[in-house]
Amino acid sequence: MADNDDILLKIRHSAAHVMAEAVIQIFPTAKIAIGPAIENGFYYDFDLPRTLTPEDLEEIEKLMKAVIKGKHTFTRQVVSRKEAEAMFKDQPYKLELIAELPEGEEISIYTQGAFTDLCRGPHVANTGEIDPAGVKLLSISSAYWRGDEKREQLQRIYGTAWRNKKELDAHLTMLEEAKKRDHRKLGRDLEIFFFDDEIGPGLPLWMPKGGVIIEELEKLAKEMEAAAGYERVKTPHLTKESLFLKSGHLPYYAESMYPPMELEGTTYYIKPMNCPFHHKIFGCRTRSYRELPLRLAEYGTCYRYEKSGELFGLMRVRSMQMNDAHIYCAEDQFETEFMAVIDMYNAYFKLFGIEKFLMRFSTHGKEGLGKKYVDNEALWLKTEDMVRKVMTKSGIPFTEVADEAAFYGPKIDVQIWSAIGREFTLATNQVDFAVPERFNLKFMNKAGTEETPLCLHRAPLSTHERMIGFLLEHFAGALPVWLSPVQVAVIPVAEPFNGYVAEIEAMLKTKGIRARADLSSDRFNAKIRLAQAEKIPYMMIAGEQEQTKKTVSVRLRTGEQLKDLAQSAFADLVKGKITSRSLSLQ
Amino acid sequence: MADNDDILLKIRHSAAHVMAEAVIQIFPTAKIAIGPAIENGFYYDFDLPRTLTPEDLEEIEKLMKAVIKGKHTFTRQVVSRKEAEAMFKDQPYKLELIAELPEGEEISIYTQGAFTDLCRGPHVANTGEIDPAGVKLLSISSAYWRGDEKREQLQRIYGTAWRNKKELDAHLTMLEEAKKRDHRKLGRDLEIFFFDDEIGPGLPLWMPKGGVIIEELEKLAKEMEAAAGYERVKTPHLTKESLFLKSGHLPYYAESMYPPMELEGTTYYIKPMNCPFHHKIFGCRTRSYRELPLRLAEYGTCYRYEKSGELFGLMRVRSMQMNDAHIYCAEDQFETEFMAVIDMYNAYFKLFGIEKFLMRFSTHGKEGLGKKYVDNEALWLKTEDMVRKVMTKSGIPFTEVADEAAFYGPKIDVQIWSAIGREFTLATNQVDFAVPERFNLKFMNKAGTEETPLCLHRAPLSTHERMIGFLLEHFAGALPVWLSPVQVAVIPVAEPFNGYVAEIEAMLKTKGIRARADLSSDRFNAKIRLAQAEKIPYMMIAGEQEQTKKTVSVRLRTGEQLKDLAQSAFADLVKGKITSRSLSLQ
Repeated sequence: MADNDDILLKIRHSAAHVMAEAVIQIFPTAKIAIGPAIENGFYYDFDLPRTLTPEDLEEIEKLMKAVIKGKHTFTRQVVSRKEAEAMFKDQPYKLELIAELPEGEEISIYTQGAFTDLCRGPHVANTGEIDPAGVKLLSISSAYWRGDEKREQLQRIYGTAWRNKKELDAHLTMLEEAKKRDHRKLGRDLEIFFFDDEIGPGLPLWMPKGGVIIEELEKLAKEMEAAAGYERVKTPHLTKESLFLKSGHLPYYAESMYPPMELEGTTYYIKPMNCPFHHKIFGCRTRSYRELPLRLAEYGTCYRYEKSGELFGLMRVRSMQMNDAHIYCAEDQFETEFMAVIDMYNAYFKLFGIEKFLMRFSTHGKEGLGKKYVDNEALWLKTEDMVRKVMTKSGIPFTEVADEAAFYGPKIDVQIWSAIGREFTLATNQVDFAVPERFNLKFMNKAGTEETPLCLHRAPLSTHERMIGFLLEHFAGALPVWLSPVQVAVIPVAEPFNGYVAEIEAMLKTKGIRARADLSSDRFNAKIRLAQAEKIPYMMIAGEQEQTKKTVSVRLRTGEQLKDLAQSAFADLVKGKITSRSLSLQ
Repeated sequence: MADNDDILLKIRHSAAHVMAEAVIQIFPTAKIAIGPAIENGFYYDFDLPRTLTPEDLEEIEKLMKAVIKGKHTFTRQVVSRKEAEAMFKDQPYKLELIAELPEGEEISIYTQGAFTDLCRGPHVANTGEIDPAGVKLLSISSAYWRGDEKREQLQRIYGTAWRNKKELDAHLTMLEEAKKRDHRKLGRDLEIFFFDDEIGPGLPLWMPKGGVIIEELEKLAKEMEAAAGYERVKTPHLTKESLFLKSGHLPYYAESMYPPMELEGTTYYIKPMNCPFHHKIFGCRTRSYRELPLRLAEYGTCYRYEKSGELFGLMRVRSMQMNDAHIYCAEDQFETEFMAVIDMYNAYFKLFGIEKFLMRFSTHGKEGLGKKYVDNEALWLKTEDMVRKVMTKSGIPFTEVADEAAFYGPKIDVQIWSAIGREFTLATNQVDFAVPERFNLKFMNKAGTEETPLCLHRAPLSTHERMIGFLLEHFAGALPVWLSPVQVAVIPVAEPFNGYVAEIEAMLKTKGIRARADLSSDRFNAKIRLAQAEKIPYMMIAGEQEQTKKTVSVRLRTGEQLKDLAQSAFADLVKGKITSRSLSLQ
């Protein structure tokens, strides 16, 4: 990935130092905290005598350009702890960092021009290697020292840096586009969802148009899952704590759960996951090998406690409805089942026009065994190996990351990129080898002896919240026909054609097309503007000619036109797009 | 209704006294509590020196018959408080009741033979008016004095009493039938739902077959509601307490709510009702009269705290998914909207073959204003009058009951009777005139001024829990084809026909029929027995003849047979029953 290139990393990290130098020129008493390179850019945190203004950013940027033009060399130097302490005697944040460096660790500093920083590098050779036209400061925000809200509040300046102006411009254009595609804004403008202060943060309300999108996604999931042999169940949203003690959620996952409720002396929790409920259904009687694989699906609602500062639109919420399913299978069925799940992902990617995706395979970390991970190294290694082999065989792109598994088994996060190249973590698959044992799940195998099944968790369509958030950005709100809350706006050129328009609307509705006649007293142009703003795929326009000839003229939201179509031909076109869940309009 | 007839009431009440007389003959030191007539029978609570056994019931019944044959006259007598206290000096429960009688109230006693009871009557003239062949003692249970678990534990004997043996037998047959149709047993036997101790009482888990029934009911609701102009929304399951303070649930409804959860210093509740969330959606922006009636529907899950002793199968649960909707309309639209709701009820009654139903119209009680009812008498009277007029006009049977309204407006409970004549409270409609005001819900009327809409709550399909519980009893588990989890069992007469059977199964599935081939190694008869026990509507049997002629032979679960049908003719038959949601199989 371009933004992880070594050279970009060096440019960004160096730009952070250059920015710190510029800030100190303006505020000689500034205390500096840390300034790393990050995805697409860099930041630096400062403790300053006053709050920064947007004008300051301009001034800092100007000074940075001067520093860059100075072509100052970045010099690396290794110093003793004492020397470091002396050098940074007026920089309390740096002193704190130095104090925490383990005994014996090399302490390095980097100097360019008048600025020296405690730093591991790497940097460019001299500031001249930074293209001043490729750097831009973006924003100021506040940040706590070490992210701890009990410590000092600092000011953070964010910047972006690229090899040259062209790359910078492309990035800025993407940012601009991302802003236009912001799912929070689109969600409100298109009347899909909103939040309400009296209900609480992270708890979206879905308006009728959001309701349609949810229904369509569920319909898709049900069709795909029925065809793949899943069965649908429905489980309670709350439970005695005993269930989550058994599942291991309470020991391992409690901080993401809602607080308990006391009822008749028993402690209840609302569920953060559906898994243990599905396990209960599997385990409600003795199962036979003939019932396996048993695939239990539920678009189940879960509740997770996220700090209010971490909530973000639909991407991070406190209540989510998940395209969940658990596949219980024998070990020799695992490969086929896992492949079938991958196939389902591929089908969804194709359907939504997702061209770039990656699976991130998270394995356990030895240190975490018995703490964040179930304590059975042999099973971890065996299961991870099994997954690794199947993923390799499937040919789907994946990377492997140590020490990020779920507590009960290896996890496969699915990363996808939207149409404008932003990365999203969509969904996870998890292979659970621990919990079936804890729940004493068994099946009678062919030999007539009891065996514990494997359990594969999967949620390809993620949660409604995250999926719809992603889709709004991905399609810039112009959803494919099948997902569009209103598929056809039927608009009369003038009031005398209201009758014809109502007739067309009724005809389209009969065919299962979500049509809406605009019979208001607004002017024709206003009606078109409204339909366009709502991103309705088809605007059918009906006037004298259409009424006489029983035809329709259609304006697509892309600006193209279809003229003089027979009513039925148009209905068939739209119906075809819906049935095939096509991404195109014609 | 027969069981409320005056004579039956007298027979039952008198039988209770006769039973008490018989009990005292066996236990002369018995302390007697209360003994009322109830629906279908009577009971009496006793404080006895030992626990009753089933043999005691027989003995008591025998003694009762002797008393009855004695034709003892029931004599009513009015006594002073002092006289009453003297008469019941060895009966502490009676003394407690006497002490609580308001000063000046007439105190009456009834005597038959050797037994005298503090009693308001009425009774038959003499015990000979009770047909001994029409009385039967049913069961013994424990009961707290005055229903208070902190008071004395008593023994309660239940009996049933009718005019004659024929009526008694009919009732006992109905009880027997109700037992066979017990939805809790059917639910487990047919693998529809179950409860789990580790999850908690009142929290059903729906197995795949229950999942199918739920999906079908939701599909029905969605179709009916889409045709009637409803729009679907989706709202959070929990909220800050501020919402329920505003809605009035916390002041008026708190004891049915789950305990609060504290989150970042804010109090949250899980929702007992969907209403305030729908109000928020109505109120998310200024509405125009052109948007009215706005009908917001959601199969929303609610959580109500019911004491564990009050839970009963699916009929009384702690978590329920409700066929909810709120209709916001102007006053002059109320009649049409209300009528449309009644039409929907009628359509459902017809669909499910519910022949007996009654609407129970609950109005406010003056005394409760400002306590259990919103304090605005004028609006109560006006709204109740409006509802009364529309109900009368609709022609649907209804009765009116004072002092049982919802806190925000009059309530219409829908009572239905199952196929075996048992009564269920299915659903409620409520007219809400108070809450739209509190939520500051407004629309711009034609004149351009703001107006508050009326809100009509309705839930014709009740909750999934209650509806499915009712349907299981009503159909004795033999659900109509469209609701049957498996619609066709495809059964080979022997193993060589497995191939043909699998082919038929695939063909039926393609047509959207839930078919299941039984390819197990079980014997043919066992397969038939299994399908019959599962109450699968059609058992398709395939052997030599069918395979050669490409026909099918079908055994219906009713025992009838269809022979030598062409494959496609059979598929069309089943498909037709599904599409029309027919109650018949052929």
